[in-house]
Amino acid sequence: MTKGKITKLSVSDVRFPTSLEQHGSDAMHTDPDYSVVYVVIETDGGLKGYGITFTIGRGTEIVVCAVEALSALVIGKSLEDIVSDFRSFYRLLTSDGQMRWIGPEKGVIQLATAAILNAIWDMWARAEGKPLWKLLVDMEPRQLIRCIDFRYLSDALTEQEALEEQMLKEGYPAYTTSCAWLGYSDEQLTELCSAALAEGWTKFKVKVGADLQDDIRRCSLIRKMIGPEKTLMIDANQRWDVAEAITWVTKLAEFRPLWIEEPTCPDDILGHAAISKALAPLGIGVATGEQCHNRVMFKQFLQASALQFVQIDSCRVGSVNENLATILMAAKFKVPVCPHAGGVGLCELVHHLSIFDYISVSASLDNRMCEYVDHLHEHFKSPTLIRNAHYMPPKDPGYSTEMFEESVKKHQFPDGEVWKSILEKK
Amino acid sequence: MTKGKITKLSVSDVRFPTSLEQHGSDAMHTDPDYSVVYVVIETDGGLKGYGITFTIGRGTEIVVCAVEALSALVIGKSLEDIVSDFRSFYRLLTSDGQMRWIGPEKGVIQLATAAILNAIWDMWARAEGKPLWKLLVDMEPRQLIRCIDFRYLSDALTEQEALEEQMLKEGYPAYTTSCAWLGYSDEQLTELCSAALAEGWTKFKVKVGADLQDDIRRCSLIRKMIGPEKTLMIDANQRWDVAEAITWVTKLAEFRPLWIEEPTCPDDILGHAAISKALAPLGIGVATGEQCHNRVMFKQFLQASALQFVQIDSCRVGSVNENLATILMAAKFKVPVCPHAGGVGLCELVHHLSIFDYISVSASLDNRMCEYVDHLHEHFKSPTLIRNAHYMPPKDPGYSTEMFEESVKKHQFPDGEVWKSILEKK
Repeated sequence: MTKGKITKLSVSDVRFPTSLEQHGSDAMHTDPDYSVVYVVIETDGGLKGYGITFTIGRGTEIVVCAVEALSALVIGKSLEDIVSDFRSFYRLLTSDGQMRWIGPEKGVIQLATAAILNAIWDMWARAEGKPLWKLLVDMEPRQLIRCIDFRYLSDALTEQEALEEQMLKEGYPAYTTSCAWLGYSDEQLTELCSAALAEGWTKFKVKVGADLQDDIRRCSLIRKMIGPEKTLMIDANQRWDVAEAITWVTKLAEFRPLWIEEPTCPDDILGHAAISKALAPLGIGVATGEQCHNRVMFKQFLQASALQFVQIDSCRVGSVNENLATILMAAKFKVPVCPHAGGVGLCELVHHLSIFDYISVSASLDNRMCEYVDHLHEHFKSPTLIRNAHYMPPKDPGYSTEMFEESVKKHQFPDGEVWKSILEKK
Repeated sequence: MTKGKITKLSVSDVRFPTSLEQHGSDAMHTDPDYSVVYVVIETDGGLKGYGITFTIGRGTEIVVCAVEALSALVIGKSLEDIVSDFRSFYRLLTSDGQMRWIGPEKGVIQLATAAILNAIWDMWARAEGKPLWKLLVDMEPRQLIRCIDFRYLSDALTEQEALEEQMLKEGYPAYTTSCAWLGYSDEQLTELCSAALAEGWTKFKVKVGADLQDDIRRCSLIRKMIGPEKTLMIDANQRWDVAEAITWVTKLAEFRPLWIEEPTCPDDILGHAAISKALAPLGIGVATGEQCHNRVMFKQFLQASALQFVQIDSCRVGSVNENLATILMAAKFKVPVCPHAGGVGLCELVHHLSIFDYISVSASLDNRMCEYVDHLHEHFKSPTLIRNAHYMPPKDPGYSTEMFEESVKKHQFPDGEVWKSILEKK
């Protein structure tokens, strides 16, 4: 496999001015400019890998700074050095004796780790000439296991058990969040929902949490449009305290949401457990994970029965390595994985993991689906392909992380032409 | 109170090359260069405030970058604007609609928040001509409560309850960690321990977790030197998995440690609860908190009986505001607060909070003490004063955060003279 050493790592601050049209708005993030930290690594033997992590505007430059700090641990290594003992490389990035302090394994430094490791996985898949999900599916169980850092997990999952997993094949169900961002008007909601129904969507998510009367009106509107059989989910983006979450969601129970997503602080395992327990009699599950910062948090959410849907994210935790650990734990605890996506590139990356989960781990589609949001795909060289509300397995080699050079150039912050013209007007 | 608006915020990357002599070494952080992100804020009315957060070398520049990003939220405000509705200002810093994503309330962005808010508290105390602990002690309960963001805490603590606290006065017991860093030889241990005994120290902490036989030898040595009556604590700095922690500490039980500190991942609440339960029959408590990233994590540690000693830190969470929340929750759950200190400036800052805790909240010294490490105090204008193993209440106005200009200049990374000469040799 050796194709030289990694001699170059470049990183860009790429922002899309999505706040101008309220795309992505929710109860806590009212004006997001969807952004990526975009990492390109190159070997002197001609290999390339592209990695991203997702951010929402201000602060992206801090993650760029963290990628630059971590880059010293990457430069000079070959892909083979890295993947032949991927667990050690993972730990090198996450447990540097000094930089560990400013995490550990959370926040900015973990986002930067995700961007770099996503680039490594993309390079690996390209070197093998396969899309990432196929690289994973074809991998020997022992090799897969060697990618995971089991530190702090051994009370819930050991290497031995993780080997007991299986195989199968198919396209992956998706649900849409594009219809009902918090900042959209009722007219927009109606129009977008009609269009989505016409396109064959059967599962819909609505943002809630800012105002109860608004939520009741919006949920009622959507439930009426989609009818009693289709699936509705609601998402509060961490807006409530524990008791408030229970009261509020109880008032929305008549619209029969499958889950309430992020009802409270993403760190509050015991709070989510209390909410899960209170809402179970109403048939409403709790979903969370897009801001769950590492595998140890997921372990506890599972141990405490604090969630009924595991929402892994491709860009917040330590890339495929850490998501593998979570997917295997979810399987052990018999909780479905329904990834968070949307943002910039999150759909492109994470459906590789859903497809792998189905073929090699869960072998089930019960209560399983992957989020889909229809924007910013046009900036990626291998965009997702949705057919009849299903993600079709990508065929291009890699992790679908590569962006068009032109897109990166235009949206570079603050000097790309898009931002130059916006900032000039301010 | 108005003395103009904050017109200037400067931030420095200040590092001390402590790894050269293995000061601060432990099982996870083998080569720390103790560092601070040093923030100076100034109003156009002549007020100044100094704030720090603590880091251990590489990555400090990332926190500096985060402080720069947050500074836009500070510039232009008056001290009165801020402290008259401190909760809102706290939330402005921690819940900016875009920057929140890269935390939330954890890691780099929370360390940066801590540095800025520490400077605000220092400025406030200086403006009132009081040391910080005295500012807190003199404050009306309602005013104190208005500094706390209760979001996500209402299931454990409400504003109403928090008002029910009292008063008293005295110096604060300290324990020393200076004798037994992991990288020290047995000769160094013996020498430092003798000196500490001669100085009147009665409580000693030993770093463990890298090698069991070493730990047995070192604990045995220290226990023999200090005799059966004095207090011994042990600290693994997150080295173990859950079952491993229980087995390992059981083997050290004969040396009767009061607590095992950071036995496993700082995020693992349920793991700490399991360890607490297993070690309770041996009379060993669990202590943690120095890397506990926010009040919601402390809430759960308390709810789950996962710790018997709450180790707040002055620089990891959202300054005095967030520590007030934790101190009040600890009082409600009847768990002693024994702050983490050492590092750079952590002793200087946190003993203000211990003294406040004693006078206004716990009114008890049972099983309560504040960590002390004897280095780098000489760089601070109001260094801690230890008398007979007790912290004496500071008298200078402020939060004891101000450093000597010369110290900052010399240790600025990478251009100060100390680093210039070290880096030239590399």
